[in-house]
Amino acid sequence: MTRRLHLNAFLMNTGHHEASWRLPESDPYAHVRLSHYVGLARTAERGTFDSLFLADSPQLWGSVAQRPAGALEPVTLLTALATATEHIGLIATASTSYNSPYNLARRLASLDIISDGRAGWNIVTTAGAEAARNFGIEHEPAHADRYARAAEFLDVALKLWDSWEDDVIVADKAAGVWGDDAKVHPPRHRGTYFGVEGPLNVPRSPQGHPLLVQAGSSEDGKRFAARYAEAVFTAQQTLADAQAFYADLKARTAAEGRDPDHVKVLPGIVPVIGSTEAEARAAEQVLEDHIVYAHGVSRLEGLLHLEPGTLDLDGPLPGDLPPEDAIEGARSRYTLVVELARRERLTVRQLIGRLGGGRGHLTFAGTPEQVADAIETWFTQGAADGFNIMPAVLPSGLDAFVDHVVPLLRARGLLRTAYGPRRTLRERYGLPRPVNQHVARPALV
Amino acid sequence: MTRRLHLNAFLMNTGHHEASWRLPESDPYAHVRLSHYVGLARTAERGTFDSLFLADSPQLWGSVAQRPAGALEPVTLLTALATATEHIGLIATASTSYNSPYNLARRLASLDIISDGRAGWNIVTTAGAEAARNFGIEHEPAHADRYARAAEFLDVALKLWDSWEDDVIVADKAAGVWGDDAKVHPPRHRGTYFGVEGPLNVPRSPQGHPLLVQAGSSEDGKRFAARYAEAVFTAQQTLADAQAFYADLKARTAAEGRDPDHVKVLPGIVPVIGSTEAEARAAEQVLEDHIVYAHGVSRLEGLLHLEPGTLDLDGPLPGDLPPEDAIEGARSRYTLVVELARRERLTVRQLIGRLGGGRGHLTFAGTPEQVADAIETWFTQGAADGFNIMPAVLPSGLDAFVDHVVPLLRARGLLRTAYGPRRTLRERYGLPRPVNQHVARPALV
Repeated sequence: MTRRLHLNAFLMNTGHHEASWRLPESDPYAHVRLSHYVGLARTAERGTFDSLFLADSPQLWGSVAQRPAGALEPVTLLTALATATEHIGLIATASTSYNSPYNLARRLASLDIISDGRAGWNIVTTAGAEAARNFGIEHEPAHADRYARAAEFLDVALKLWDSWEDDVIVADKAAGVWGDDAKVHPPRHRGTYFGVEGPLNVPRSPQGHPLLVQAGSSEDGKRFAARYAEAVFTAQQTLADAQAFYADLKARTAAEGRDPDHVKVLPGIVPVIGSTEAEARAAEQVLEDHIVYAHGVSRLEGLLHLEPGTLDLDGPLPGDLPPEDAIEGARSRYTLVVELARRERLTVRQLIGRLGGGRGHLTFAGTPEQVADAIETWFTQGAADGFNIMPAVLPSGLDAFVDHVVPLLRARGLLRTAYGPRRTLRERYGLPRPVNQHVARPALV
Repeated sequence: MTRRLHLNAFLMNTGHHEASWRLPESDPYAHVRLSHYVGLARTAERGTFDSLFLADSPQLWGSVAQRPAGALEPVTLLTALATATEHIGLIATASTSYNSPYNLARRLASLDIISDGRAGWNIVTTAGAEAARNFGIEHEPAHADRYARAAEFLDVALKLWDSWEDDVIVADKAAGVWGDDAKVHPPRHRGTYFGVEGPLNVPRSPQGHPLLVQAGSSEDGKRFAARYAEAVFTAQQTLADAQAFYADLKARTAAEGRDPDHVKVLPGIVPVIGSTEAEARAAEQVLEDHIVYAHGVSRLEGLLHLEPGTLDLDGPLPGDLPPEDAIEGARSRYTLVVELARRERLTVRQLIGRLGGGRGHLTFAGTPEQVADAIETWFTQGAADGFNIMPAVLPSGLDAFVDHVVPLLRARGLLRTAYGPRRTLRERYGLPRPVNQHVARPALV
């Protein structure tokens, strides 16, 4: 079978550019309006995307003055979108630090059932003291602790999702026997972070369990991805970096005893599309002109763990920033930002401009052909199994991608032209359905 | 304005009779099928019900052999139903013992936004050691502790829902100012059970917060209802008991300084409808004939905290049962069951038959006129502001109620004939929108 691109639509407010909400076309209430997301989901389905995705953190980010704040809870919102769509996968971000395995496993299984097997979970450990303080924890948990808890969370969740075999239900009305208790397996988990007796109170869902997605690229993050993830969202600025990340993650996955083809790598790309390159660059410039740099400085100081007032807008980053290992927060994002500034010798102002478009993801302004070329190059040169499409402005940027780039990708044989019959999200990504851990695999005779 | 009945549809699997799934008409997978609930919700909307409701507990109840087991998580399922309906309120059960206030407040606010103001929360404290053990707690929390935690949970949730004033969003694109930080109020809560810094990361929802519903009728439960609840679901077997409960709850509400009309009392009724009384009784008998009594005995022994094998199917309940105060589990249900058996001098077999229909709620078998008469009597005689309709068999029992009883209630002027314009759930129940605790009430000049 021809190798095909996997496309994910990363839906975020009025777009991934922080100033997008200030454009005349943008609805400043869009991010809390169901109709906004229904429209985007249907556009992504028109573009035969594999999936759509919502980021999340259980906290209010900074000042509400700066940009649209707040977000509908992802599993809730995606359940509503499940009823408005038919084919597209629905990937919710949820935190292993601030949820309990029983409740979260159940909600995701419910979404998988309601969507007929289209649920995915972007597993995050949630950096930052702000989120911790919403859950009675005064100090930010250490990076390594967050990942240790995440690993135990996954193990428990997988036990819960396997606590019903697929064929529990016998439904013998005459005998008055509904299910087979011998096929229900309580996890009886007693661990470091969790005690969960089980079993789950939802039957095994169409996919067995939701597609497991991961996005952190720190050492801990990559180890976690190699062990559990079936799809990885990543931020890479150059082809060489993306190739190195791709090769590294596939090798780590193989080292875990998994088929490296069973983890799909999707770098993020922020396309800004114009009918000419000049038009695309002008659209990018309009967005940059709407950035409020004072806000960018304070956010950058937060990310870099600097005191307010440290950064000089027209100077470089300070030379004495701490190494990644000393950071307890969002490690891989920290390194990406510092390396971007140093590699390209950016001033703080220029760095904010670059980050404003996609928070460190690759911004690519150009014609549809140029965007399709970039995608094809990364896809065929060992840098990507697909892309996480992050339009700078929504909904117009997703419309432009689907109307002008998708037809080119289809003409080049890189993307499906239609969904065909209904499939699960995992089937879209070309991944096998997980075998229940309580069911013996058939012997190879 | 004429006083009108409030009707809630309590949706549960293939019906409230435990043997309903064994009828030829019943789909044994119905309870985990979205289409089943969409059909029921639309039927309830055809009957101009105020709301529909899903019970819940984060645990698998007993043996899967006995009856359809497992349930989709309510907030998730109701969000899907929000998109399939237009007018009806959507009430989710969620536990204060096994959720964190930040996450649950957010999910309910999300449902309220997605449904345009139709969300309700049935607040439960969740009895039983089984649920506790799914959340790392080895022993069932004491009844009083559960209610103390519930009260603090409510206080925190209300602070979170009020952490955005209604008019935070200014959306000044020209100035680059999206919101007014002065109108965002982090709760900064430090209590016995919870520490929650806040603010919530969702704007204040159409209703301010979801309709608050309560169902426990123990002393602790009634105190809690008088303080917080806007609607109360209750199980009463006789008109006299229902009148006493109604008067007591209204008086307690007034004693809390609240308008007693701002808590609506809805007893549960399990209607079994036939075109003649004999036909209705025959339908009831068919259901009773399908009860597996061995299952009923073991569940009753669990509820009464008796050793397995204690009960004699054809004898009375033991005389030496402990008083309600000694029960840490579901107290009001315990008392109801014991009093029902003693008042009517039931054998264990008869008691199981009575409970099989609605777990202690009033089962009423009769013609549409008889059901309408019973409803009218309770409604006009100070026993109810409306009813929690719990059909023995679903979907057919809800169809029968809507097709045959609803027209009679409308003809008698007791029930709306159409919804009219869209309204919030709280408006349907005739209740005021909560004023944000951070906004000064206008002075009465």
